[in-house]
Amino acid sequence: MLSAFAALPALPMLLPTFALAQLSASPAGQTPATNPLPSWNDTAPKKAIFDFVERVTKQGSPDFVREAERIATFDNDGTLWAEQPLYSQLLFALDRVKVLAPQHPEWATEEPFALLLKGDVRAALAGGEPAIAKIVMATHAGMISMEFTEIVRDWIATAKHPVTGRLYTEMVYQPMLELVAYLRSNNFNNFIVSGGGIDFMRQWTDRVYGIVPEKVVGSSGKTKFEMQNGKWVLMRLPEISFIDDGPGKPVGIHEHIGLRPIAAFDNSDGDQAMLEWTTGDKSRSRFGLLVHHTDAVREWAYDRDSKVGKLDKALDAAPAEGWTVMSMKDDWNKIFPFGSK
Amino acid sequence: MLSAFAALPALPMLLPTFALAQLSASPAGQTPATNPLPSWNDTAPKKAIFDFVERVTKQGSPDFVREAERIATFDNDGTLWAEQPLYSQLLFALDRVKVLAPQHPEWATEEPFALLLKGDVRAALAGGEPAIAKIVMATHAGMISMEFTEIVRDWIATAKHPVTGRLYTEMVYQPMLELVAYLRSNNFNNFIVSGGGIDFMRQWTDRVYGIVPEKVVGSSGKTKFEMQNGKWVLMRLPEISFIDDGPGKPVGIHEHIGLRPIAAFDNSDGDQAMLEWTTGDKSRSRFGLLVHHTDAVREWAYDRDSKVGKLDKALDAAPAEGWTVMSMKDDWNKIFPFGSK
Repeated sequence: MLSAFAALPALPMLLPTFALAQLSASPAGQTPATNPLPSWNDTAPKKAIFDFVERVTKQGSPDFVREAERIATFDNDGTLWAEQPLYSQLLFALDRVKVLAPQHPEWATEEPFALLLKGDVRAALAGGEPAIAKIVMATHAGMISMEFTEIVRDWIATAKHPVTGRLYTEMVYQPMLELVAYLRSNNFNNFIVSGGGIDFMRQWTDRVYGIVPEKVVGSSGKTKFEMQNGKWVLMRLPEISFIDDGPGKPVGIHEHIGLRPIAAFDNSDGDQAMLEWTTGDKSRSRFGLLVHHTDAVREWAYDRDSKVGKLDKALDAAPAEGWTVMSMKDDWNKIFPFGSK
Repeated sequence: MLSAFAALPALPMLLPTFALAQLSASPAGQTPATNPLPSWNDTAPKKAIFDFVERVTKQGSPDFVREAERIATFDNDGTLWAEQPLYSQLLFALDRVKVLAPQHPEWATEEPFALLLKGDVRAALAGGEPAIAKIVMATHAGMISMEFTEIVRDWIATAKHPVTGRLYTEMVYQPMLELVAYLRSNNFNNFIVSGGGIDFMRQWTDRVYGIVPEKVVGSSGKTKFEMQNGKWVLMRLPEISFIDDGPGKPVGIHEHIGLRPIAAFDNSDGDQAMLEWTTGDKSRSRFGLLVHHTDAVREWAYDRDSKVGKLDKALDAAPAEGWTVMSMKDDWNKIFPFGSK
């Protein structure tokens, strides 16, 4: 796939992300008097969101939830930004392998690096999780935390999406930016809970979604506090600390937030446990939503058979669980801040 | 020690903690016009705090720090509340052993439980960390998260400090309550970073300090998301996940907050790494403070030879590191909201 990507023309689309700036002009604590979700069609999902928010925020309502407990959790890949044709963080890792290759002559014969460097991403990733873990460890560890921060910030500021040529931070869903802002304006406490790397996301989620580093929950590697050249540093070790995916998501939520969310926004089977945990307590108000990727023209259409963001069991479970399933094609009149793919 | 504690009269001092309610009457974002730290004497530490806060909050000051980066971290035991004669959480665990003993006939011959149940706490704890770990695992795991929450809430609402007979939530330092509120009013983002258990602290830190669960960093055990009797639960496993002490504190700060603090408030050698991480970047504004327990009459006097809250190496390091060392005896005119020990 890398070779296919490399063949794409580099499109001159370095527009800054402007969606957040537009949205945050509306002061926190106030609901815009007019439609706060303009990119959502007037279909059932939008009505369900409005209905839920009204019930839990209305003083005296039997479903009222006090502000301190209005925890909302958002998956990131495929829920807040695009995850096709590959998770952005994996594309970051592949870019890093190319940058680091001159320092690693052994990669010429060591898999999955050799295949990657020949441009055969598909074959390299066929090694599955062990291969991906090797790539991630080689690109995310062995440096201090501040160095990794700089590398991610440089990459996210310049790297282009392989299909659209846009910055990755432009590949965010305009309707979800509106939803995040709408919940915030109703004094919800928004968190990202993603299988992605916590230190990868934290470098840009505040700027792009208005979600600060402490409100990002993700997968992490171990770090070690140590002295290097007379300075205290956190060294990134090539060792997994926590995988914030599948049944790990409720664990990550518990560890980081300490309260059970009342709303969760997701898109794949990897998010099912997070939805179950959020909506499983039937004695209280709760809301679960699945983003169904149904728009092959404006975004991508995929679900049960996709290797990235597979949505199968969670889709089957949705009706009985009461989760709202929204269709990108039918329920969103705009996909990205700049329009469509 | 348990036997000595049991011999104490149960004092009728179930007063609610009122300090926070008084303090939070001052709206966030405004510094009280008059002295915001009335329980601090007009000595050097108070002046150092005022000087630091003024420098980092004054627009145009070369030391100005924007609000998003005004992270302040507080140790809990010995910094925000009393830790003598034993850490409160260990006293909680000892109480739990007594409650659970009828379900564990094997404890009659199994150490450290047998010694504990005979009332010889000193001998039981002589087993050191392995003994303490056994006690903590037996009392903090093997139940679901919500059950543990209820147990802690019940205990903290009724259990009495073995020396003063006060509720543990009354054994907080009035000057630190004022400091937490003062920093908050200057748009600092306050976190607890403690070796104590994250789920133990989160049940009362909001009510007592105004620090919500998501802003509490502590030691944790592993949890597992699973179905029990048709309900999704988080089961507490008898396995350590993270020790938030010593060099673990900067790691916990990084994982939970994602930013390097600019101020840290501590009292023991177990906090030294947190102070080093907070104040180690000499290129920016930063503040470190050590609470020195010097008042045997109103609180307890201990440092280099104490088994609880030992302060030795960090005290020696303070002058060169520029950490402010405050003396309870000399710098605080009030210790607890109710007065003195």
